[in-house]
Amino acid sequence: MTSGFFYPKTATGESSLIPAPPWHYSGDLLTVEYRTNPDRVRDLLPEPLELAEEDPGAVALIWADWQSCSDSRDELLDPVRSQYKEAFAVVRCRYRGVTYSRCVYIWVDKDFAVARGIHQGYPKKFGSIHMTRPHPYGPAPRLEAGARFGATLAAADRRLAQAVVTLRETSDTNGFVNGHPMAHHRTLPSITGDGLALDELVESGAKSFEAGPAWRGEADLELFEAPTEELARLVVREPIAAYFRQLGVVWDGGKVLEKR
Amino acid sequence: MTSGFFYPKTATGESSLIPAPPWHYSGDLLTVEYRTNPDRVRDLLPEPLELAEEDPGAVALIWADWQSCSDSRDELLDPVRSQYKEAFAVVRCRYRGVTYSRCVYIWVDKDFAVARGIHQGYPKKFGSIHMTRPHPYGPAPRLEAGARFGATLAAADRRLAQAVVTLRETSDTNGFVNGHPMAHHRTLPSITGDGLALDELVESGAKSFEAGPAWRGEADLELFEAPTEELARLVVREPIAAYFRQLGVVWDGGKVLEKR
Amino acid sequence: MTSGFFYPKTATGESSLIPAPPWHYSGDLLTVEYRTNPDRVRDLLPEPLELAEEDPGAVALIWADWQSCSDSRDELLDPVRSQYKEAFAVVRCRYRGVTYSRCVYIWVDKDFAVARGIHQGYPKKFGSIHMTRPHPYGPAPRLEAGARFGATLAAADRRLAQAVVTLRETSDTNGFVNGHPMAHHRTLPSITGDGLALDELVESGAKSFEAGPAWRGEADLELFEAPTEELARLVVREPIAAYFRQLGVVWDGGKVLEKR
Amino acid sequence: MTSGFFYPKTATGESSLIPAPPWHYSGDLLTVEYRTNPDRVRDLLPEPLELAEEDPGAVALIWADWQSCSDSRDELLDPVRSQYKEAFAVVRCRYRGVTYSRCVYIWVDKDFAVARGIHQGYPKKFGSIHMTRPHPYGPAPRLEAGARFGATLAAADRRLAQAVVTLRETSDTNGFVNGHPMAHHRTLPSITGDGLALDELVESGAKSFEAGPAWRGEADLELFEAPTEELARLVVREPIAAYFRQLGVVWDGGKVLEKR
Repeated sequence: MTSGFFYPKTATGESSLIPAPPWHYSGDLLTVEYRTNPDRVRDLLPEPLELAEEDPGAVALIWADWQSCSDSRDELLDPVRSQYKEAFAVVRCRYRGVTYSRCVYIWVDKDFAVARGIHQGYPKKFGSIHMTRPHPYGPAPRLEAGARFGATLAAADRRLAQAVVTLRETSDTNGFVNGHPMAHHRTLPSITGDGLALDELVESGAKSFEAGPAWRGEADLELFEAPTEELARLVVREPIAAYFRQLGVVWDGGKVLEKR
Repeated sequence: MTSGFFYPKTATGESSLIPAPPWHYSGDLLTVEYRTNPDRVRDLLPEPLELAEEDPGAVALIWADWQSCSDSRDELLDPVRSQYKEAFAVVRCRYRGVTYSRCVYIWVDKDFAVARGIHQGYPKKFGSIHMTRPHPYGPAPRLEAGARFGATLAAADRRLAQAVVTLRETSDTNGFVNGHPMAHHRTLPSITGDGLALDELVESGAKSFEAGPAWRGEADLELFEAPTEELARLVVREPIAAYFRQLGVVWDGGKVLEKR
Repeated sequence: MTSGFFYPKTATGESSLIPAPPWHYSGDLLTVEYRTNPDRVRDLLPEPLELAEEDPGAVALIWADWQSCSDSRDELLDPVRSQYKEAFAVVRCRYRGVTYSRCVYIWVDKDFAVARGIHQGYPKKFGSIHMTRPHPYGPAPRLEAGARFGATLAAADRRLAQAVVTLRETSDTNGFVNGHPMAHHRTLPSITGDGLALDELVESGAKSFEAGPAWRGEADLELFEAPTEELARLVVREPIAAYFRQLGVVWDGGKVLEKR
Repeated sequence: MTSGFFYPKTATGESSLIPAPPWHYSGDLLTVEYRTNPDRVRDLLPEPLELAEEDPGAVALIWADWQSCSDSRDELLDPVRSQYKEAFAVVRCRYRGVTYSRCVYIWVDKDFAVARGIHQGYPKKFGSIHMTRPHPYGPAPRLEAGARFGATLAAADRRLAQAVVTLRETSDTNGFVNGHPMAHHRTLPSITGDGLALDELVESGAKSFEAGPAWRGEADLELFEAPTEELARLVVREPIAAYFRQLGVVWDGGKVLEKR
């Protein structure tokens, strides 16, 4: 008999690309919120999801610099297995009258993060992600008014997005677009090429959460075209705000909203 | 409505991490066949798969250097989107009296290859894969008797395998372990953490195939331990042979053997 | 006493980032020749180098896919130590009445290639370089009329150049811009910040050379701006031709033209 | 006329792989000090350098996670150009009766860091370097007694070193091996293959420095063999201590001790 949370399945389960949840994360989030054409958001919502009622064109483009691990904490001491960065675009949507957040694009830089995304319904591709880190000494920014952070995303050797965020003040929130439970699809095409073998709408969110003060400021954001990417179609119509926050979070599964 | 063969699904489908099959491949394969303890092969076969009746401990460790594309051929002209390398371990198994090949471990170096593996049931992780390429000029080997090719595999900054293959003569076969249709599982854990949301046994193979002469020789193969890998458990008991072959192949889906 | 051709110097010399020449190469070259504004070429020629008398605005942008090794050939069997790709821009110049080729920009993807460049006077930076490889089977191109090859260059997560080359016919030459001995500077700033500690003009070229037929065709070439690169200043005024050739070459040192 | 601190030299100097000093750094240092056989240290000291008089076998193996920039600070906002990691081995030596630190091996993960090393006399190769980062939330360690940090180094797809450091208490020092001005050689082989074109012994150190409290603890350190590396020859005879410190530093050139 084979075991393991994910593939490859073996007698011991030790080869599994990802361990069973819960998954624990420490990280820094740089969030840029803006309004795009709501039609471009609707383009990314499969039925039965609908546009959010309020501010339906709101988008959050988020950079995250993570250290993550399983309950064993082993990955933290072999940091090539715990550290990764990601950049992702989040919109809101409505399902049965409830507002959800939804990740519509995401790029990460490690395979275990891709596998977790397949489990969670995040549409993860590989990318090269960078973001300035706050630091208490030398030229890197402190977390303080006026501090500036850069963030970039590239995939397939093309730059897709870049932002420079200037912090202004502490904030009660870290933005509103990524603030709801996530409504994600988990799908896999049929091996015959005819329809889907798996087609689920799932809900999940953080099991627990701790965080430092959020900082708010404004962003200078640029999106770039690429032949196999459509992030730039979420054109910036109107900036909302930008945020920086350090946090810890635990993810431990979700529930099925519907399955076809 | 959203479209696209794979995620992310968009209005146009252009963002899909992988296009719909058929998928076309040009590549070089370096195959090292050997016998391990059949119990270690059985460890990797979930029910209802059984050990192959003949030579049940046979393993093929294969390095491949690919250029792949969709029907559009567009990827070939932006080669960061078509070129990738992989190393994978194949065993044979029996299902309802029929012998199948089965990939038990595989590492690749591009995200589109990971996504194709999820569709095809290959348990793909990320790795760093290198293999000597034949070349008609300079110090690199020609395809001829006495030519030597090196091949290495690393993941998470640890070397997992390395081989040096010496060619001896042309061969009627490119080995026998990877010569059957593939019997692979496609599984995804339930989002609730309780069982599997998808659990399929699928069969697939090449839709069409062309190749140059196979070369046979012998290999010096080493496998190395790593905390999250079990390839080295497929210990080399007895070498069989090694092969080099250049080929073109088309993959265009498969069929479900059983679904739970 | 320490030994070794290059740093780090040790008792054995085995750690040297590069072995002593001669260095042996097998590779494929994709060359795109065009004319730019000669003033932009002059901008890159330090005194006493002058513009070439004929066709002074000619540029060759070359992609190369190499396997290289020392006399020991050991690197070929551990191919992570022998394989690398590069993209480089070559112009011609005149020194004491003689025409030389000169590499003005170059990007490579391995550290040993950077070190060899420092020795040879190539101004090597790191980049991500891809080029289509010819292959006898499947969708990748054969070396034949109508075959198309893509080539791309990126650095610091920005695409800097991309080309699509269509082959038309075999050719007596592989272009003319990269056809002379190279005249390169080897310089190092003084540790005090005051002037140069080393300032040499050196000449070198291939010690020996073998090659297959050259193919000629035309290219569609695009250059892109980046904050720390000036390749795009060598704007394409007029295409000349494009070439593909497979070759083997040996490099074994050069001579000093002048030293300050 | 061409300009620029480093190659490639252009009319504007904007392409220079590195800007002119001063260079500013923010970073975290994880230092593991131990004693090896002093003969192994002597093996790495070219004349006229001698072993340090006290504790001549002391070695510091240091991991560093940097953000660096020029006076313009521009790199900080395009962090792919400012962030890098390195691992390096430092010993002490004596020159004209004065004790110096000396970096004998170093691996970095960005090209601009390699170029700065060539200027400063650090024998930089490329590697893959990881170290746990302290974080105020979630599973990553705080800077406190009992906190554990992992650090790993790989090159050419082989792991060369790994350490787990446990912090015990704050410390007045961050170790003693890396505490002196650096005595480094800057050398370049002659293009003719005959001797050296540049052969300087230089001294440099930080122009200014600020830092948080140092933490001291102990390390579990492992070194691994590799065909082109000799780090493992600096075998661990006796652990001394391990340290973690966050700091800011400015480097602005040095002076020539002797030139041949």
